Amino acid sequence: MKPEMDTAKKLHSALSALAPRAEGGEAHLAAALAQVADSPGKMVRGQIVYAAARHHDLSEGASEQLACAVELFHSASLLLDDLPCMDDATTRRGRECVHRIHGDATAILAALALINRAHVLVGFAFATQPAETRVQALLCVDEMLGAFGLLGGQARDLRFAERARTAREVGQIAAGKTGALFRLALLLPALAAQPEPGEFSRLRALAVYWGQWFQAIDDLKDILGSEATSGKTTQRDRVLDRPNLALILGVPAARRRIARLEQQILRTLAHLGRYGTRWEYLTRFHAQFSPQAAAA
Amino acid sequence: MKPEMDTAKKLHSALSALAPRAEGGEAHLAAALAQVADSPGKMVRGQIVYAAARHHDLSEGASEQLACAVELFHSASLLLDDLPCMDDATTRRGRECVHRIHGDATAILAALALINRAHVLVGFAFATQPAETRVQALLCVDEMLGAFGLLGGQARDLRFAERARTAREVGQIAAGKTGALFRLALLLPALAAQPEPGEFSRLRALAVYWGQWFQAIDDLKDILGSEATSGKTTQRDRVLDRPNLALILGVPAARRRIARLEQQILRTLAHLGRYGTRWEYLTRFHAQFSPQAAAA
Repeated sequence: MKPEMDTAKKLHSALSALAPRAEGGEAHLAAALAQVADSPGKMVRGQIVYAAARHHDLSEGASEQLACAVELFHSASLLLDDLPCMDDATTRRGRECVHRIHGDATAILAALALINRAHVLVGFAFATQPAETRVQALLCVDEMLGAFGLLGGQARDLRFAERARTAREVGQIAAGKTGALFRLALLLPALAAQPEPGEFSRLRALAVYWGQWFQAIDDLKDILGSEATSGKTTQRDRVLDRPNLALILGVPAARRRIARLEQQILRTLAHLGRYGTRWEYLTRFHAQFSPQAAAA
Repeated sequence: MKPEMDTAKKLHSALSALAPRAEGGEAHLAAALAQVADSPGKMVRGQIVYAAARHHDLSEGASEQLACAVELFHSASLLLDDLPCMDDATTRRGRECVHRIHGDATAILAALALINRAHVLVGFAFATQPAETRVQALLCVDEMLGAFGLLGGQARDLRFAERARTAREVGQIAAGKTGALFRLALLLPALAAQPEPGEFSRLRALAVYWGQWFQAIDDLKDILGSEATSGKTTQRDRVLDRPNLALILGVPAARRRIARLEQQILRTLAHLGRYGTRWEYLTRFHAQFSPQAAAA
């Protein structure tokens, strides 16, 4: 546990230094940005990025920049998700939502400031990499955050009530909304290792399986968790009419799906093992993730 | 006129190819993005960027990427400006605003897709430049679009009604809201020429003077134009309680300010002339801009 704690602390301090601020500028924007910089959450994605980046010999500074970039993209998506025209949330990370304190417009501008800084940090982190790696990083950002990635997932989620509730639709929303940032967190630092095309395909597949696996586990927990702890059947996703795979497939089929995804993850990790030891850290990641799955 | 017409046509076609699209993805996002890509406006900023980038020997492709990036940042700022929580506009570029057709959330997601692609295009355009130039381009984007640039200007503008109506406050709003993108349009391609620090300071000053000059001319036109054409005193900025320098200073002082800014512009152009011929195109730009000023 100790080294992880240290990484979390280090990344909190890096984020505090690298997140955009507006002290001395417009007061509401400044307060909104300070709230984001000072309530960074658990930085799970940032820790994954940082560990992978260091493993692939990115410098301490570049690894922190890359980790903070992914965290800032994530924080921006939360600010926007919480808006009345999206999920209409009231609290986030234990505090009142930015739009409830400073208005929707300030929340939007704060999210844009985070996104702007995040893109710049990705550029800085890769500044000394070969041109080919930098271009691949740009393509990766374009795809994962774009209209068929994160933004596409958000757009589908908005219209979920209007569409057919198929496992496929739920899967596509999850792939975009939560999966895309997770794929970005895994693939961006891996690009520093200059993977061969076949190797990169395996990494992409692994990132997709992991994303689907996490989402399926979360969905199942949402259904089972509330029943187990409260004895009630009022699950959040059902009540809020949210896309949930376990709701659509049923619990036994969702469990089978989770088991099948884990087999695909292990098989992909084994394939990556053939490229030498440099992807071994991914097997360690999986070992860290697995207790969550077992709890579901 | 002919070469300019050709550039506009070329840039329209480049934008159509480089703007993000979502056909086959979520239908509202796809329609919103198609509306932006197919109604590009006059692309004034794009033409400035393109001409400067070609002058500094960026390739045809890189110049188009850079020009389109600045246009996409601009289009995104318009989509967001038009939202009910900002300026609450109904039409844009001759069509009903995106948020009025597809809702606020889709307009926000479309703006984010434009911004994401714009950052990626800046990265592509500079991909083969030396590391120092790329880092300077990142710093330039960070500053011009950030909490003390474009976003800061938008944030101040939102709170204009709550604050003291000083010439300084109006100037700071204009410097952020319209000036920052203009500075980006001038400075980004100039970085490809690897200017010395002293040279770059002059370029920055020129971009600031030009931005202030344009804004002062626009403000004055808003006051004089409606009186001249309609005989009424109902100026748009006064009616809408918008920041307008000519309203605060009065017409004679605004005219003196415009004349003083033009002197500063000409003096800075003369200074830049001492670094050889490579900034001569900026003097041609000024000659193209001047008829607008004379009309005010």
